[in-house]
Amino acid sequence: MDKIKVAIIGGSGYSGEELLRLLLRHPGVELVAVTSRENAGKRVGDFFPRYSECDLRFVPPQVEEIASMAEVVFLALPNGLASQYAAPLLEKGCKVIDLSADFRLRDPAVYEKYYKMAHPAPWLLSQAVYGLPELYREELRSARLVANPGCYVTSILLPVTALLREKAASPRGIVAMSMSGVTGAGRKVSLDYIFPECNESLRPYGVTGHRHLPEIEQELAATAQVPSVTMNFLPHLVPVNRGIHSSVLLEPGEGKTLEDAREALEKAYGQEPFVRVLEPGKLADTKHVTRTNLCEIGCLYDSHTGKLVVSSAIDNLTKGASGQAVQNMNLICGFPETTGLLIS
Amino acid sequence: MDKIKVAIIGGSGYSGEELLRLLLRHPGVELVAVTSRENAGKRVGDFFPRYSECDLRFVPPQVEEIASMAEVVFLALPNGLASQYAAPLLEKGCKVIDLSADFRLRDPAVYEKYYKMAHPAPWLLSQAVYGLPELYREELRSARLVANPGCYVTSILLPVTALLREKAASPRGIVAMSMSGVTGAGRKVSLDYIFPECNESLRPYGVTGHRHLPEIEQELAATAQVPSVTMNFLPHLVPVNRGIHSSVLLEPGEGKTLEDAREALEKAYGQEPFVRVLEPGKLADTKHVTRTNLCEIGCLYDSHTGKLVVSSAIDNLTKGASGQAVQNMNLICGFPETTGLLIS
Amino acid sequence: MDKIKVAIIGGSGYSGEELLRLLLRHPGVELVAVTSRENAGKRVGDFFPRYSECDLRFVPPQVEEIASMAEVVFLALPNGLASQYAAPLLEKGCKVIDLSADFRLRDPAVYEKYYKMAHPAPWLLSQAVYGLPELYREELRSARLVANPGCYVTSILLPVTALLREKAASPRGIVAMSMSGVTGAGRKVSLDYIFPECNESLRPYGVTGHRHLPEIEQELAATAQVPSVTMNFLPHLVPVNRGIHSSVLLEPGEGKTLEDAREALEKAYGQEPFVRVLEPGKLADTKHVTRTNLCEIGCLYDSHTGKLVVSSAIDNLTKGASGQAVQNMNLICGFPETTGLLIS
Amino acid sequence: MDKIKVAIIGGSGYSGEELLRLLLRHPGVELVAVTSRENAGKRVGDFFPRYSECDLRFVPPQVEEIASMAEVVFLALPNGLASQYAAPLLEKGCKVIDLSADFRLRDPAVYEKYYKMAHPAPWLLSQAVYGLPELYREELRSARLVANPGCYVTSILLPVTALLREKAASPRGIVAMSMSGVTGAGRKVSLDYIFPECNESLRPYGVTGHRHLPEIEQELAATAQVPSVTMNFLPHLVPVNRGIHSSVLLEPGEGKTLEDAREALEKAYGQEPFVRVLEPGKLADTKHVTRTNLCEIGCLYDSHTGKLVVSSAIDNLTKGASGQAVQNMNLICGFPETTGLLIS
Repeated sequence: MDKIKVAIIGGSGYSGEELLRLLLRHPGVELVAVTSRENAGKRVGDFFPRYSECDLRFVPPQVEEIASMAEVVFLALPNGLASQYAAPLLEKGCKVIDLSADFRLRDPAVYEKYYKMAHPAPWLLSQAVYGLPELYREELRSARLVANPGCYVTSILLPVTALLREKAASPRGIVAMSMSGVTGAGRKVSLDYIFPECNESLRPYGVTGHRHLPEIEQELAATAQVPSVTMNFLPHLVPVNRGIHSSVLLEPGEGKTLEDAREALEKAYGQEPFVRVLEPGKLADTKHVTRTNLCEIGCLYDSHTGKLVVSSAIDNLTKGASGQAVQNMNLICGFPETTGLLIS
Repeated sequence: MDKIKVAIIGGSGYSGEELLRLLLRHPGVELVAVTSRENAGKRVGDFFPRYSECDLRFVPPQVEEIASMAEVVFLALPNGLASQYAAPLLEKGCKVIDLSADFRLRDPAVYEKYYKMAHPAPWLLSQAVYGLPELYREELRSARLVANPGCYVTSILLPVTALLREKAASPRGIVAMSMSGVTGAGRKVSLDYIFPECNESLRPYGVTGHRHLPEIEQELAATAQVPSVTMNFLPHLVPVNRGIHSSVLLEPGEGKTLEDAREALEKAYGQEPFVRVLEPGKLADTKHVTRTNLCEIGCLYDSHTGKLVVSSAIDNLTKGASGQAVQNMNLICGFPETTGLLIS
Repeated sequence: MDKIKVAIIGGSGYSGEELLRLLLRHPGVELVAVTSRENAGKRVGDFFPRYSECDLRFVPPQVEEIASMAEVVFLALPNGLASQYAAPLLEKGCKVIDLSADFRLRDPAVYEKYYKMAHPAPWLLSQAVYGLPELYREELRSARLVANPGCYVTSILLPVTALLREKAASPRGIVAMSMSGVTGAGRKVSLDYIFPECNESLRPYGVTGHRHLPEIEQELAATAQVPSVTMNFLPHLVPVNRGIHSSVLLEPGEGKTLEDAREALEKAYGQEPFVRVLEPGKLADTKHVTRTNLCEIGCLYDSHTGKLVVSSAIDNLTKGASGQAVQNMNLICGFPETTGLLIS
Repeated sequence: MDKIKVAIIGGSGYSGEELLRLLLRHPGVELVAVTSRENAGKRVGDFFPRYSECDLRFVPPQVEEIASMAEVVFLALPNGLASQYAAPLLEKGCKVIDLSADFRLRDPAVYEKYYKMAHPAPWLLSQAVYGLPELYREELRSARLVANPGCYVTSILLPVTALLREKAASPRGIVAMSMSGVTGAGRKVSLDYIFPECNESLRPYGVTGHRHLPEIEQELAATAQVPSVTMNFLPHLVPVNRGIHSSVLLEPGEGKTLEDAREALEKAYGQEPFVRVLEPGKLADTKHVTRTNLCEIGCLYDSHTGKLVVSSAIDNLTKGASGQAVQNMNLICGFPETTGLLIS
């Protein structure tokens, strides 16, 4: 059987590297191009020595050429730039899975508010499908443009949408506190991210107005079928390479108990291959999920305050970015959804 | 001038080690005894090579002997055991600074609920002074039994009491999310704490019913002059050696603004040597305070949800334990409060 | 085609966990049993949440039962205990891949000297094949008992044997300095290995008489065809989870140059799937090989002292233990050697 | 008594920060100026929040002004730049302690070879005193220009000179292998040093021709009273913030034993406040010395190869840079040598 031809535009960052890992081991695809303006001409397997078996060379990001070679194109590009590639690629018939934020927010005004620029391709927003398979699986199967969710977002949406859908929790007064490893900042060379400034350092950032917030609220409102959700989201940077943990506090739905919450999670994820609901009393730990496409979810009831406490862990680069992108590719290409994503 | 003679009972754990560091460099005290049942006879400076200049030898924890030598005794012992030493030491005229939880909770029933044992010395509770100098400075000057606060507790009480006192924040609906380094668990040899299980791991624990919760609530209620405070406290374990960061969400007090909150913090801490209120927009980072007795506090207003977001950082072993204990000692001994605790 | 049935005896340590990862994703095998005395009855996928899809339950290590189910058995057991399982398993017709040190040393007297016990099954030594495929590939194809090499050993033998074989380096005066991550100590619960004692700590250990030394010397002597090799081996413990780096200083062979050394490495590894010789001037970095079965090798000439400097990096749990064991299994089972071991 | 007035030129890097820590707590000095071209005007205590009590503001590095204020000036500047400041400062009567490499090598030709530039002030070399107090204490007392040693250098010279001086070891065939924390690279913003590239990474670098090599060889030759020493020095970068560990292999001197080596170390360091010779069998660990001015030394004999194995640990920023600089200042100012440098 012929393999699907795929390309990565923007292949030298951490998400690009993780895409590479997952696509090189994927039995159903052939990686035909990886772009990097800066590294064009270099052998990919030399740039990423752990994938030294990869003989491809980085090429410049030329849309024509990529479109002529690949059926599915992953965009691992900065916000704002991604949509400039998406438009011509879609026109030339490629399917596009965009790991940036460009197509995640349905309302371009919200995009403009949070990303401080006019949306570069608002006419495409209506055809973008939000790439969280556990929420939009059917729509994704026929999608031509996938907006791959943010990393923090995935860690919060997976547990919380399950609760909201069954009214096991209220959409009001939600508080999410997250911790992220440093690859979450990308391969960013700045003083804040050198080793001695991160190691032995614990710090919040973006605790008001983080860019992932409107994306979380948009999807929670859609799930809860309410006009809007307004919540607190407090991200923190901690000294690990990979992993995101989110702790979420929620008001139980009217008349609902922990049992209802657990049933909602079970109902949502009992059959999901990449979501693992922990047994009662257990909380999530990122070390159980790093380098996997898994999301681990624990749920407790705090009788002291009457709140539900949800704990979820993912790998920011896998289920939080590139693993989820490959899961989406599996859906749009008709592969079994777990292809290439199981135990690694 | 004669130096005050001090002793440490329980000197082989991390708090004991930090006490040692601070007392050995303190110009006003002479450390006359450090106990360790297990290491009795060993030279302290060999057990802790970084304090190799210390010629003392560990002795067994014999109350009579300690009491005959020392005026002030620090207890760095497990909960429940500490109070067994406190009673006879007090009787023999020593002043006692207890780093355990034994004298922190005013109500022995609460102690029993959270520590799963009857309080071993309830008759002493009334004379114990809660050892947070920024709250109880005057009472501490004449204290004979100091209940040194918990580490998480200190990081939360310092910012939050300042806000509650001025009604800049409401005592209702408070949520605190904290991250602690692994020394917070003590020198504990168990699978959960070996390096490969902690490194590259992010995990919550004790998110319902953590033992530090009643201590926080007791002091917040006292400050707010309300019968009780009920709040959420979510602690997490992260891979650093030292440091606690707490992010706290609060409802502003009626009619109060960020400006009021900042004024409340300035009023409380403008003259405090160990609390640093960050300039507007800045958040706390543990790497600024490790190995110091400082607490760094940032405060923002989230216009999206109408909440105050407070960020505070301390070193769990210094301001969170032994540094605070020495600050208390300075108070009860009449030394200038910063003696031995400035830049290190 | 029927899959080969395999079992792991001693499945709850770090090597066992890594074996699990590699065997669960291996297309040619069915994992039929994983033993753990302590965890018997527990679901393997619960004990190791990252392999939550594994439905097996730990069983006690009963030889009869294992032998009736599995064709190939991996022993991930303490030294001394492994050989007690190897004997009856071999008798019952299983092929055995032993990750302990029990069958690595050809001379039981050397075993006794370094492991402080009489060899428990010296009569089996003659049939054991040393499991370094790059050295003993042909013998391994028909082996029934494989002595999987030590982790440090692999990192040193791969570069050095290639040089000795071509006389590009002298077998005299070799000095190897290695650094290992903490999983190298196993899942060992002791004060030396808790997080705060390892993090921010750099320390040598076993710099005289380390147990891996005789194994290195035995294989170097065999390769160099000299009666014995006597060298220095200096291991160090450093705060990473996984990875071993070895720096080796060697005298060039008589009349040999860096060019000869590089040719020797190229000759040995140009076609090897798991050994990557770096381009001139480059040195190995463990982060390029963690969680892979790769060994990265760099080689320089120091004109100042006239020595060759070799740098090699592996993952101590993969190429240094379980990955190599699976590579050996591939050989003895007739699978392509890289099956299940490529990009992960 | 009047305090000595001191200034730091180049105060915003890691060595500058450590100088700040040590000078602020030093009872005999008043810090009158800290320069930083980039941060001129900023309050030092805001730039380094852990020293928030420091009210100085960074000033531009103007020699005239500094010279009019300070008696002793520390230069924490890049190589090549430092000597441009040293010359006019000396002329104006300041004493200069230079933390760069500019005055460490007696032969400007060697400087040119290793630092790839002509020496900027060769006429000053003859008056520079090498700032290792344990070697040059008497000369330092009257020095006006101190060449503070390199960090790796200090960790190797302390154990090895003691052995060479007593002929307990031979100056031939020495091999030193070192590991350094990432602050050793300075506050350097480059891809190689961002957290995800350093964490979980072990790598050698500069294993031929490292700039610290000629400095080590120069001092070893001087101590051994031989024309030159030629040795191997293999540095490695490992994921800790602070600390250097060196393992050194040496041939015992003719007819000398481990006992002689230990006696040589005892003789050299029995009375030294900052060097701690470990008891037989023990090896150095950086965690015992970080943030102290201590050097910990262990020494073993390897009967297998007949070599001495020396293990030494320092903090690269303290005894390896700024602590040593303050120790030198104590000498040239006539303070007791340990002033401000004991337990911290």
